[in-house]
Amino acid sequence: MKRHAFLIQSPMMKPLNLDWRIVLVRPRNPLNVGAVARAMANFGMRDLVVVAPYEPVWQEARSAVGAEAVLQSARAVPSLLEAVGDCMLVVGTTAGSRRSLDRDLLPLSDFPAWLRRRQPRGRAAFLFGSEKTGLSNEHLSYCHVLVRIPTAAGCPSMNLGQAVAVCTYELARAGAIPSRPPRLTVHRADPASVQPLDHLFERAVRVLDQVGYLKPKTRKAMLRKLRRLLLELELTNQDARILGAVLAQIEWGLARKTGVRSQESE
Amino acid sequence: MKRHAFLIQSPMMKPLNLDWRIVLVRPRNPLNVGAVARAMANFGMRDLVVVAPYEPVWQEARSAVGAEAVLQSARAVPSLLEAVGDCMLVVGTTAGSRRSLDRDLLPLSDFPAWLRRRQPRGRAAFLFGSEKTGLSNEHLSYCHVLVRIPTAAGCPSMNLGQAVAVCTYELARAGAIPSRPPRLTVHRADPASVQPLDHLFERAVRVLDQVGYLKPKTRKAMLRKLRRLLLELELTNQDARILGAVLAQIEWGLARKTGVRSQESE
Repeated sequence: MKRHAFLIQSPMMKPLNLDWRIVLVRPRNPLNVGAVARAMANFGMRDLVVVAPYEPVWQEARSAVGAEAVLQSARAVPSLLEAVGDCMLVVGTTAGSRRSLDRDLLPLSDFPAWLRRRQPRGRAAFLFGSEKTGLSNEHLSYCHVLVRIPTAAGCPSMNLGQAVAVCTYELARAGAIPSRPPRLTVHRADPASVQPLDHLFERAVRVLDQVGYLKPKTRKAMLRKLRRLLLELELTNQDARILGAVLAQIEWGLARKTGVRSQESE
Repeated sequence: MKRHAFLIQSPMMKPLNLDWRIVLVRPRNPLNVGAVARAMANFGMRDLVVVAPYEPVWQEARSAVGAEAVLQSARAVPSLLEAVGDCMLVVGTTAGSRRSLDRDLLPLSDFPAWLRRRQPRGRAAFLFGSEKTGLSNEHLSYCHVLVRIPTAAGCPSMNLGQAVAVCTYELARAGAIPSRPPRLTVHRADPASVQPLDHLFERAVRVLDQVGYLKPKTRKAMLRKLRRLLLELELTNQDARILGAVLAQIEWGLARKTGVRSQESE
């Protein structure tokens, strides 16, 4: 009878089945890139992707004496979308001081509980901005959730390598880093990753442009909100396919109507 | 009636009344010293003491552009005893890989609960060894408790700046860093700090030498054990005074007996 006690787990205790990737957007200091790789190795992470690095920074980081295996197998990609396209979950990080954001920031220590409630599966990315500027609002619009490290008001901004160390420590502390990468089995609910959602987004933008919904002044902010909305809907791949077909149909209808109008005005 | 709910706190929720000091023993890299100061500022700590730094390392760290206020007010002292003499609690840090230690290591995440059980007050030091060697057994013998950051077996050793960031994050996370240094009020139980215990230790060593208890081969290891024993007894200042008086009496008695013997042998 006692053996069963181990099988009956509370929802809080379900193991998290996530394959973590650390994504650095345009880091400026090769030493920081090396420090990030070291922290990842310390806490059992392997997958490092660097977005649009300055070429000398990237070369210096990779050729550093004693560079971690993590760094040797790290990839550089030109855009954030390429870094997170296959991810089911994208987590943005931001300094505690930024107040202009129009959504809540989760304190890092509350993030494991959030994860256990959501039970995401598959690949997940933890995003860190460049040392000077952090993540832009454009970058943040790719994120499902934002976390902040609760730093002191007088000195809120952390060193990049230390920020990654603290975040990976918190994940390891919560048992959210598997000792080996989990097999990426297809989940029954089949949630959509970032890439198909981005296709959907592009299609929606074309439609909104055709109907003249996007005004030049607010266009950028509106697009960021739209992308975030798409993430927050937690669409499955089937949802994404259906919505994509609906949008394609609307595009076709709009083109036809424009055509009809053109004929009428002739 | 409801107001009382805030006053009835469980022992787990008692605020920790500790004034933290970070102590670095002989750090080798000025950049690491700077990173330590940055992490301290990030999590609201102010008091940095460096033991026996290499002079060029210390000068370079202090003169770094953008050095934190923490670094500007940091002190260098020649010995560990001078760094922790006024502390009521000394916490040693060590990599997860070290197995030869003859006592348990507390995982860092369990340390806040340990603190709340013990309810220490006053000044507390968190010790970090040099990048290459960590803390020696001699240094560890000054510690009341040892903690380790649970790192991966394949890459257990952390960068110094990142290790300090993770430890200070864990303390801040647990609410163990007061927003301003607490007033150092005298606790009723009046526990002895490291300095009077060290005097007691020195006196005990003299007595043990006089009675020939310390053998040259095991002397060093025995002294480390004795110092640790003294810490673990959790003596009050009164205990320390009484024991000191007892040892002084024994010393006097031994000197007299030796004197009598000397006379007898004449």
